[in-house]
Amino acid sequence: MERIPVLKIGDYLLVTIQVDIQDRQALALQDDLSRAVNRYKSKGVLIDISALDMVDSFMGRMLGTIASIIRVMDAETVVVGMQPAVAITLVELGLSLPGVSTALTLEKGMELLRSRLHMLRGEDGFDNEDA
Amino acid sequence: MERIPVLKIGDYLLVTIQVDIQDRQALALQDDLSRAVNRYKSKGVLIDISALDMVDSFMGRMLGTIASIIRVMDAETVVVGMQPAVAITLVELGLSLPGVSTALTLEKGMELLRSRLHMLRGEDGFDNEDA
Repeated sequence: MERIPVLKIGDYLLVTIQVDIQDRQALALQDDLSRAVNRYKSKGVLIDISALDMVDSFMGRMLGTIASIIRVMDAETVVVGMQPAVAITLVELGLSLPGVSTALTLEKGMELLRSRLHMLRGEDGFDNEDA
Repeated sequence: MERIPVLKIGDYLLVTIQVDIQDRQALALQDDLSRAVNRYKSKGVLIDISALDMVDSFMGRMLGTIASIIRVMDAETVVVGMQPAVAITLVELGLSLPGVSTALTLEKGMELLRSRLHMLRGEDGFDNEDA
């Protein structure tokens, strides 16, 4: 079983999902990600799925679960690079990924995290936690 | 055939190789990477191989070829996250990756590229092009 690498970029972690994930791989990813958030005190996790042209309900649920785990660890998850067909499939499957933020590209995802963190730190005078 | 995603992070491009690459996939990656360098005017390419615990001579040559292509396009390639066993295997195979820079982690690789670019721009008063 190949483990999906978790890469650290400053305050964030990056995971790129390139293949259909199996059960054990998903569990390993959850494990690796939460350990990395804990170890590096990361404030955000970016999950790139631009390589996927299909997402099934298992993958959809996995993304939701990961986002929930990351949230209780006080970090944010942004799914980036979703292809149009994947968005359509997800909604058709009834998986609108509640609680998961999305961004079109990795860079936009990083910007989103950056602005969220600024808001949470109250740099514009108020707390914002609508995620 | 799954294409390996090329992610843009500022001036750099990031590729994470997670599985053993086949011939056609390697060609597609060369193609995608050189197009992306051209399109985004990228100054550096980071190739993360932390997920690989084995590198054969095909993969070794591929990394060398990609680095050469990127170099003639006036950008730099840094291979990051190489596992110790992979380093040993590469040298045993007689592939010491000439012309390919390496860094232990993605962040160190980005730092390396940043300092190279500063030097090339002559910000410390001289040009340096030993890569």
